[in-house]
Amino acid sequence: MDVSKLIGESEPPYYELIGFELLEADDGYARGHIPLTERNSGVNNRLISHGGLTASIADIVGYWAVSSANDFGLTPTVDLRIDYVAPALDDLYAEGTVQRNGDSTATVDVTVTADDEVVALARGQYKTSGASAETAWGL
Amino acid sequence: MDVSKLIGESEPPYYELIGFELLEADDGYARGHIPLTERNSGVNNRLISHGGLTASIADIVGYWAVSSANDFGLTPTVDLRIDYVAPALDDLYAEGTVQRNGDSTATVDVTVTADDEVVALARGQYKTSGASAETAWGL
Amino acid sequence: MDVSKLIGESEPPYYELIGFELLEADDGYARGHIPLTERNSGVNNRLISHGGLTASIADIVGYWAVSSANDFGLTPTVDLRIDYVAPALDDLYAEGTVQRNGDSTATVDVTVTADDEVVALARGQYKTSGASAETAWGL
Amino acid sequence: MDVSKLIGESEPPYYELIGFELLEADDGYARGHIPLTERNSGVNNRLISHGGLTASIADIVGYWAVSSANDFGLTPTVDLRIDYVAPALDDLYAEGTVQRNGDSTATVDVTVTADDEVVALARGQYKTSGASAETAWGL
Repeated sequence: MDVSKLIGESEPPYYELIGFELLEADDGYARGHIPLTERNSGVNNRLISHGGLTASIADIVGYWAVSSANDFGLTPTVDLRIDYVAPALDDLYAEGTVQRNGDSTATVDVTVTADDEVVALARGQYKTSGASAETAWGL
Repeated sequence: MDVSKLIGESEPPYYELIGFELLEADDGYARGHIPLTERNSGVNNRLISHGGLTASIADIVGYWAVSSANDFGLTPTVDLRIDYVAPALDDLYAEGTVQRNGDSTATVDVTVTADDEVVALARGQYKTSGASAETAWGL
Repeated sequence: MDVSKLIGESEPPYYELIGFELLEADDGYARGHIPLTERNSGVNNRLISHGGLTASIADIVGYWAVSSANDFGLTPTVDLRIDYVAPALDDLYAEGTVQRNGDSTATVDVTVTADDEVVALARGQYKTSGASAETAWGL
Repeated sequence: MDVSKLIGESEPPYYELIGFELLEADDGYARGHIPLTERNSGVNNRLISHGGLTASIADIVGYWAVSSANDFGLTPTVDLRIDYVAPALDDLYAEGTVQRNGDSTATVDVTVTADDEVVALARGQYKTSGASAETAWGL
């Protein structure tokens, strides 16, 4: 799947704001990237990922892993847990893998790394059915 | 506590990036705000909070609730779970309350609202001891 | 709702094993009880609830809160997080309240107390649709 | 490490109640077992693990993985999340692996299987310091 077509012109502003780039999304697996910069750092005058930024890449990559296992439909997050394992002092990379793709929800695991070291582990449930642009995001 | 002094000149770039403003932090309780705008929206051409943005306000407000119960020391997030209850179509507000302030970690609950409706519930553990600027953020 | 009729002759053996008693279940709210005894204690020669016992009462009471909001249908647990707040040195009581009752899953909060003190906080997702005796429990 | 010596005469009554047996615990890794029987089944007249039983084996095996990485000291659970992936229709086995062994808490992953199939994934934080028999369990 050509990921540039997945997002294309409808790129969520939040992706651009935090610098997220989708690298791969296919068959229950996804991978993404956020460069760590002076704009999104969690600490002044140093490059350290904020926990919210790390949670954001986990949430987004989890989303694409689940969506890619469900015909790239809308798969909103139901819940997400993130465990911080080490400080992230470099660009963030995340990989997500669907563990169970159920009729109503999917379980996905996401590992976030920086400089090839694991910095966070996330696991969540995403909705897999019944979500339209209306019901998923509430119009 | 005058929250402007808490953050002051050392405001994390990430706060400014996503538009976070701390409104109150004292005695195990904190409150914060993120205006929802075209810059941080999770969907193109509409104002809907991205799950990562909602997780970010929860993480930050949880942090300040815990920090405020521990002499405003550094209290890094150990883990955080967030459950999404409804789409957030308006400015985000979050309130955090420490449920247990232990020697090594604290348990904190955060409720995120938009337009006076609960949109997400978060609960996490934050470190309460032994974190210096070096050990907390990994130098 | 007369809870004795809810369970009746089909009481799960696990309830009897750990000593669980359902006290109330109606309209998205449930309450239950486990006496702490020498049989289910987590420590030898003392009465202290094991974390697994505390998780069990949370899971069961969460189940009945969700089931009671869905015509007492089968509502299997999707995921559950439990935070231990204090040691439980006395009989366990738990109260569960549905926070969101969605088409595919429900979010429920459970508070576990012992001697009128909060000992654990739990939050989980339970399936609300599509579960029959076959699909729910896997035959 | 001879696991029979680890538990020995001070076996928690809860282990015997639910039928838990520790198979291995060493260097941040542990493995355990619960036979599924008519006594601990979650459904009448059928053998299906109750979610509380599955959470119990996850909690216990996570405990021993963390304890084994910390000189077999007391390492109480701080929080645990469990995701149910499939119904468990056969004897439960669980494997736990410490992902991060920090000064104050450890992060551990536990996989629960039945009939060689993954039935649940758990992740939690356990306390690694400052816990004595008194402070850990509240005397």
